[in-house]
Amino acid sequence: MEDYGRFLALLASALLVGFASVVISLVWVFQYRGGLSWDGSSREFNWHPILIVMGFVFIQGIAIIVYRLPWTWKCSKLLMKFIHAGLNTIAMILVIIAIVSAFDFHNANNNPNMYSLHSWIGLIAVICYCLQLFFGVAVFLLPYAPVRLRAALMPIHVYSGLTIFGTVIATCLMGITEKLIFSLSNPPYSQSPPEAILVNCLGLLLVIFGALILWMVSRPHWKRPREENAKTLRHIGATPEGTEAESTMTNSNADKSDPRSNTEAARKQNITFDEAGQRTTM
Amino acid sequence: MEDYGRFLALLASALLVGFASVVISLVWVFQYRGGLSWDGSSREFNWHPILIVMGFVFIQGIAIIVYRLPWTWKCSKLLMKFIHAGLNTIAMILVIIAIVSAFDFHNANNNPNMYSLHSWIGLIAVICYCLQLFFGVAVFLLPYAPVRLRAALMPIHVYSGLTIFGTVIATCLMGITEKLIFSLSNPPYSQSPPEAILVNCLGLLLVIFGALILWMVSRPHWKRPREENAKTLRHIGATPEGTEAESTMTNSNADKSDPRSNTEAARKQNITFDEAGQRTTM
Repeated sequence: MEDYGRFLALLASALLVGFASVVISLVWVFQYRGGLSWDGSSREFNWHPILIVMGFVFIQGIAIIVYRLPWTWKCSKLLMKFIHAGLNTIAMILVIIAIVSAFDFHNANNNPNMYSLHSWIGLIAVICYCLQLFFGVAVFLLPYAPVRLRAALMPIHVYSGLTIFGTVIATCLMGITEKLIFSLSNPPYSQSPPEAILVNCLGLLLVIFGALILWMVSRPHWKRPREENAKTLRHIGATPEGTEAESTMTNSNADKSDPRSNTEAARKQNITFDEAGQRTTM
Repeated sequence: MEDYGRFLALLASALLVGFASVVISLVWVFQYRGGLSWDGSSREFNWHPILIVMGFVFIQGIAIIVYRLPWTWKCSKLLMKFIHAGLNTIAMILVIIAIVSAFDFHNANNNPNMYSLHSWIGLIAVICYCLQLFFGVAVFLLPYAPVRLRAALMPIHVYSGLTIFGTVIATCLMGITEKLIFSLSNPPYSQSPPEAILVNCLGLLLVIFGALILWMVSRPHWKRPREENAKTLRHIGATPEGTEAESTMTNSNADKSDPRSNTEAARKQNITFDEAGQRTTM
């Protein structure tokens, strides 16, 4: 891998910043907001920032760059797809619990739901994230989608994944702004009490985490190399031409779906598709 | 151009959404917030959202995709660089006036400055934007930077430009959230009065505008083609190898900077550099 040292330094920085964000959200909740519970009080709402930072930012960020980790290049693409989808599924579950905690708190206290820009964009981001995961599994993990469809949808999958990730971070920043204005009163947010400084720093760390992830995922020379992929698959008995099809759950459908599978056109299509597969995380 | 119709449809959508954002910010200010003035009142602050939406979002967005417009491919790269830098300079001037209006309003009303996450991240974005413009002009427009340095810095220029653009939109969303919470009281934001619905829609449009610009700029087949570039430059008497150097203000320094300019190594370097030049806007 080119620039291996730089990649490791960036990965360590991203992990450190992401981990620090989770720790700060815990400190915020336990030191300033009364801790956690599930009783309709503001302590139930406290699950919301913790689970969002942990699931929707940190775990989603790791899921985005998981194909880039050079020590995973000896693993099959199929295994990596399971890890990518698995991490996103864990994140989705945490996000759903986080949303339920916010709605529960609002309902228990007769606060209106879904009036703020934070809630509008946040709900759109969650719906898009669930759709992205559903279509990602249906098209790229399960063996039913034809090669042509996969190749056509891969750029959209990558773009929408990164756009959702960026939108999630923007939504966190709105949530932090709302929460600090509403919950700080004596002294208020405008007097910059220690809680305000701490949580502003959390917002800054989320932006830095997002920027690090987007840098790592958009460097072409840090992509999972095609050669390694083919080598691994040859090792388990697949033909190099079937590379991407083999890395789905089974290759039966991918092979059957195109009657031209032994032609030059099919070979070119496989190359395009393999290329698309490499861009799973941009 | 591949998918010319789709590009035009996306461009028209982006322009429509961007224009609608500017119009909605004007409606917000004139219908609900008392219009504009420069007297320390809240009407002075009203310049802030209008100029930010107009300059930091709409004009910056257009500056990002200006190299993609197919009817500009017959223009020299140098002219396009001037337009790219010019649009960003206009945006920067509008942003500085917008910031002054906010500080002026705060000072005139004894409101603290720089306490909110919006102000922290907003100021960082403005500083990064000014640095991006300064280094962009110094390295890519003026003829002093050697070819090797330009090629090395181009991916950073593209990445930081797009990251700043995304961060600016996130900062706008925080600003909208703050302003609606502070300025709506009877009925409050939580009762979703018409102003809240209108300005939430403005926030949504800003996200859609950002998403459209990022899609257009990240499609590799919509990049300004190298052939056209070389053809134009041949037409004005330059050699194809000097493509990128010719597109700076003069090519004298670029040619002198590397004694190997007639070697195979220099040819490869020029190709790399030309490639980098094509990625000015990702």
